[in-house]
Amino acid sequence: MRDVAIIGIGINKWGELWNKSLRDIYVEAALNAIDDAKIEKIDAMYVGSMAPGLFVGQEHLSSLLSDYLGHGPIPTTRVESACASGGLAIRQGFIDVASGMNDIVLVGGVEKMNDVDGATATDALASASDSEWEAFHGITFPGIYALMARAHMMRYGTTRTHLSQVAVKNHENGLLNPHAQFQMKLTVDQVSNSAKVADPLRLLDCSPVTDGAAAVIMCPLDMAKKISKNHAIVKLSGSGHATDSIALHSRADLTTLNSTILAAQQAYKMAKLGPKDINFAEVHDCFTISEIIISESLGFFEKGEGGRAVERGETSLSGKMPINPSGGLKSKGHPVGATGVAQVYEVVSQLRGDAGKRQLKNAKRALTQNMGGSGGSSLVHLWEVL
Amino acid sequence: MRDVAIIGIGINKWGELWNKSLRDIYVEAALNAIDDAKIEKIDAMYVGSMAPGLFVGQEHLSSLLSDYLGHGPIPTTRVESACASGGLAIRQGFIDVASGMNDIVLVGGVEKMNDVDGATATDALASASDSEWEAFHGITFPGIYALMARAHMMRYGTTRTHLSQVAVKNHENGLLNPHAQFQMKLTVDQVSNSAKVADPLRLLDCSPVTDGAAAVIMCPLDMAKKISKNHAIVKLSGSGHATDSIALHSRADLTTLNSTILAAQQAYKMAKLGPKDINFAEVHDCFTISEIIISESLGFFEKGEGGRAVERGETSLSGKMPINPSGGLKSKGHPVGATGVAQVYEVVSQLRGDAGKRQLKNAKRALTQNMGGSGGSSLVHLWEVL
Repeated sequence: MRDVAIIGIGINKWGELWNKSLRDIYVEAALNAIDDAKIEKIDAMYVGSMAPGLFVGQEHLSSLLSDYLGHGPIPTTRVESACASGGLAIRQGFIDVASGMNDIVLVGGVEKMNDVDGATATDALASASDSEWEAFHGITFPGIYALMARAHMMRYGTTRTHLSQVAVKNHENGLLNPHAQFQMKLTVDQVSNSAKVADPLRLLDCSPVTDGAAAVIMCPLDMAKKISKNHAIVKLSGSGHATDSIALHSRADLTTLNSTILAAQQAYKMAKLGPKDINFAEVHDCFTISEIIISESLGFFEKGEGGRAVERGETSLSGKMPINPSGGLKSKGHPVGATGVAQVYEVVSQLRGDAGKRQLKNAKRALTQNMGGSGGSSLVHLWEVL
Repeated sequence: MRDVAIIGIGINKWGELWNKSLRDIYVEAALNAIDDAKIEKIDAMYVGSMAPGLFVGQEHLSSLLSDYLGHGPIPTTRVESACASGGLAIRQGFIDVASGMNDIVLVGGVEKMNDVDGATATDALASASDSEWEAFHGITFPGIYALMARAHMMRYGTTRTHLSQVAVKNHENGLLNPHAQFQMKLTVDQVSNSAKVADPLRLLDCSPVTDGAAAVIMCPLDMAKKISKNHAIVKLSGSGHATDSIALHSRADLTTLNSTILAAQQAYKMAKLGPKDINFAEVHDCFTISEIIISESLGFFEKGEGGRAVERGETSLSGKMPINPSGGLKSKGHPVGATGVAQVYEVVSQLRGDAGKRQLKNAKRALTQNMGGSGGSSLVHLWEVL
């Protein structure tokens, strides 16, 4: 397999984009990536999108987005793994380039979520759970993650304040990110006293409904060294992908994420790195509790210590393991299919030293973790700047 | 890239499966493929499915189907390219094995279409067209293909009888296929006088709404030679994948399928074969006119001659280029995400000499062609028995 690098990144301003359609925002992000890479043509495209059929009545994004991007007949593959669709697109683009099938591959992610009302959006998202055994009986994702939060609090002493501190930290970061949906400061009291959604989770524990897209350009590392003149080259050094039972009730332990643990093991092994070698990470904080559990499942902190690590400031921009410098799903927004690709946009920006006011001091090796449903699927990737 | 072979195939009886769910039929076909290959474990899985969110309210098939198949944490990727989702899963499984990422890969396709009413199914299928410029204005796929049929009739003298002869031939084949949805003989008069759907297309020109699944097991060719004791080995010798404008109105010519032409060129080039080297084909006869146009776009007949070739019996089981020996989408059924994988089930059965009453005499090299929407995406694969 060939080594693979990123030579271009693009994104758009995320939010409630009433005046733009799915195809508009995808093309905007993709053209930004093509411009950033300074390339003329792409050989193939992978698109992560969770539920464009349910959100905007449009499947067949492969044809639609190749066409609207003006790259007509190229082979284009849409992949879906619920909220991990973007991370899965990254992996499939990597396998494609690594195999030798194609050289220059655009990997994008997109979701247009605000064209339906809130109840319909909730139903669409619930299709990532076990529809027959979870959604049908009325539980949606805030309820599912609330069960995980309560179990983590009972077993490890994680507190309501720890959850709020995740939101406060990610909004502090998002304030420094011009593409973020919610650029506003929060206090622990505001989060802890916001409206109850599913006890113990409050409104400000939840990532928002977002319209957005992101894209990156991949090519073989050897080619990147020749054609990438304006940017430091970022190498994809590890990829992991694992699944778990789709229904939460089938798992032995609600306080851990087995698919993330397995995907991280695969990625660390491929890159010959461990959690201590990583300088910072972008992870899937769909709810505040997710970031805490994920940070443990990735090996950054001991099991049960994720909440206290946030309290000690270890995951802040100036901490020893910054998590979600972009603002994360919580502040930057969560257009579900785009999230896994936007994580790569952030780590490449940081590794290049181009992250502006949120630039980390020591950014050499990074991890991205993207997750579907309540952890039914996980993608973990490792990135190094050359 | 490594050479890739098929070592197992599985399918279920297609139809209106009121007593089975999406997960049931997928697992049935997948277990049949695993049994056929006589393997203990699989390393990864690819699933083609067009719109499980719209048909049964379930996305995240990667997690759901890994879980229900009992292969828990393996990396599983759902791909979607409308009705070409199955063919796309075949290609992505091929790239994965060829790259060296995984050795034994299960590629499945599934669609459960009968759990919604006919109008909802039509809407779900229309999401494969340009939703803003086609479906929104009221045209659905019978209307789109009727435009193509009328243009082909005007330019090339294709007749109403030619269309009916495609349906009659495919139903003759389907009578010999125990997995087919509609095992019944048709006459030209019955097809030509069936209810009008969108002039000139009649009810019996249209493929049906079907519940069904299919699966195949891939591995490196070198490994297949070691572990496959009971079956002749079938090699995937060419793969092509191309897109076209999603909307029919953006195309210069309604009587040809550019994505199929390009995908076929790629596959022929990879395999170092041409249309004259192919003994038979499974193609995407979603409507009778599709089979005629596809047979020209693949190079089996001159442009405009597809209808007359059917009339001369050249595409029948005993003809010089049998097309759709399985019965095709028309008689076997068209569970959209499963179709592209079921085509491979058929060609492998034929190439092994295991196709029972519909066994072709000279089956050494075969082609499969699977298509999304009105040709917005196409997949072409070539197969050879060793």
